[in-house]
Amino acid sequence: MTKAELLHQIKLKNSYLCVGLDTDITKVPRHLLASDDPIFEFNKQIIDATVDFAVAYKPNIAFYESQGAKGWESLQKTVDYIPKACFTIADAKRGDIGNTSAMYAQAFFEKMSFDSITVAPYMGRDSVEPFLQFEGKWVILLAYTSNSGSSDFQKLTVSKDDIPLYEQVISTSSKWAGDDQLMYVVGATHPQEMKKIRSLVPDNFLLVPGVGAQGGSLKDVSEAAITKEVGLLVNSSRGIIYASNDKEFASIAGQKAKEVQQEMLGYLNLYC
Amino acid sequence: MTKAELLHQIKLKNSYLCVGLDTDITKVPRHLLASDDPIFEFNKQIIDATVDFAVAYKPNIAFYESQGAKGWESLQKTVDYIPKACFTIADAKRGDIGNTSAMYAQAFFEKMSFDSITVAPYMGRDSVEPFLQFEGKWVILLAYTSNSGSSDFQKLTVSKDDIPLYEQVISTSSKWAGDDQLMYVVGATHPQEMKKIRSLVPDNFLLVPGVGAQGGSLKDVSEAAITKEVGLLVNSSRGIIYASNDKEFASIAGQKAKEVQQEMLGYLNLYC
Repeated sequence: MTKAELLHQIKLKNSYLCVGLDTDITKVPRHLLASDDPIFEFNKQIIDATVDFAVAYKPNIAFYESQGAKGWESLQKTVDYIPKACFTIADAKRGDIGNTSAMYAQAFFEKMSFDSITVAPYMGRDSVEPFLQFEGKWVILLAYTSNSGSSDFQKLTVSKDDIPLYEQVISTSSKWAGDDQLMYVVGATHPQEMKKIRSLVPDNFLLVPGVGAQGGSLKDVSEAAITKEVGLLVNSSRGIIYASNDKEFASIAGQKAKEVQQEMLGYLNLYC
Repeated sequence: MTKAELLHQIKLKNSYLCVGLDTDITKVPRHLLASDDPIFEFNKQIIDATVDFAVAYKPNIAFYESQGAKGWESLQKTVDYIPKACFTIADAKRGDIGNTSAMYAQAFFEKMSFDSITVAPYMGRDSVEPFLQFEGKWVILLAYTSNSGSSDFQKLTVSKDDIPLYEQVISTSSKWAGDDQLMYVVGATHPQEMKKIRSLVPDNFLLVPGVGAQGGSLKDVSEAAITKEVGLLVNSSRGIIYASNDKEFASIAGQKAKEVQQEMLGYLNLYC
């Protein structure tokens, strides 16, 4: 998907919501457990109920891998089911030496047709570049993550430019690809730092996890980093997909997604 | 597997060789392609031919994921086939927020019975700890990797202690777990830095990739970092498993593994 196509979807739906499909077999409503593939059935109903309010879907690959080969099939069916107009993110946090990253790229971009993948930067340029060799596909590089452990290494000051490591990651990697191929993960739990990050990469999309269960605020994130061309995908997982676990779970997820979208509409009107 | 059990295997086989199962369907000998599962068939024959000379096997997860659900089945069969006396490493380079890392741990330690997994440190302590909750299982944390991109971020000097990031990763993370649960990945392409790393973590095993195709030397690595209790697992992938691609591929892989083991025997006699 191109940047223009993504922006078109955002304007069409008045939304920059990404729904995180962290689908946990132990949290799926019990009445789905009788189906052949409860994880896919859950995702299908969630997608149907939220697709008018979400521009992106982000399956969290760990939740599928934990189910072995069957989970991998549920993942494949899920990606195939997501409408092509939506942006798909393999939240995989991969990254390895060149020939291995190339295999991961093949797994997520060719075997499955994800539009993008989250990538960990620790192994440097040649671990990221194989993912950049696919036209219309995106790398979403971890910069400043939403978890408490982000302070262990990401916040360390690096002597080279006397800036935190996550800023160094952004300034170095932004030379590897343009804003039509590269996004960054920045946690909603860091709204202050997000302003600085926005100034470093004024045109790159930021994928923002950490709203909701992790304590971040959509308002703070939007104020800090929205641009004329939006430049944000804000993820919500548990707050939407597990809003209810009874038979009405999908329609309640749809209502929650709509509430987020309505709040986003306000910020789009205000800032874009 | 406990550290004592691993050391017992090393002494029994006079070897600290890890065979990397980077099994690429496009490189498997043609005569195997007719079998139901060529990847597993290849691995099975390689394991049979090398098991007298190797103490560890390291499937590179990307190569299996690139084949989708079928690849995941080949991986499961491979792990099940490796003799229990051998140490198994899921070379997965995972790492995510706590509840997600817990899912990856479940995938590799419970769904499949790997002894260990390689983990990327960028997301910090709460991304690593879920992997440390399993008795007898190991985290092998990326420290200073063998690829050229290791110089992009890992070598940056961090102001906190005025040391390279990879040393900071080691000194910080070595407080999270003991040397009975934590190993480090250090590339064979950095023998000089390996001496310093050994002084930082005198009792932790180092998993060393990068001998052979990537240019590292077994001699240099052994001189730099072997200890009285060995403390090394040196990986070879392409140099062993793709030494030949004709019908004799397995016996030639076995010969190559034996050559490495014989060289290791010399270093064990000299230093341990």
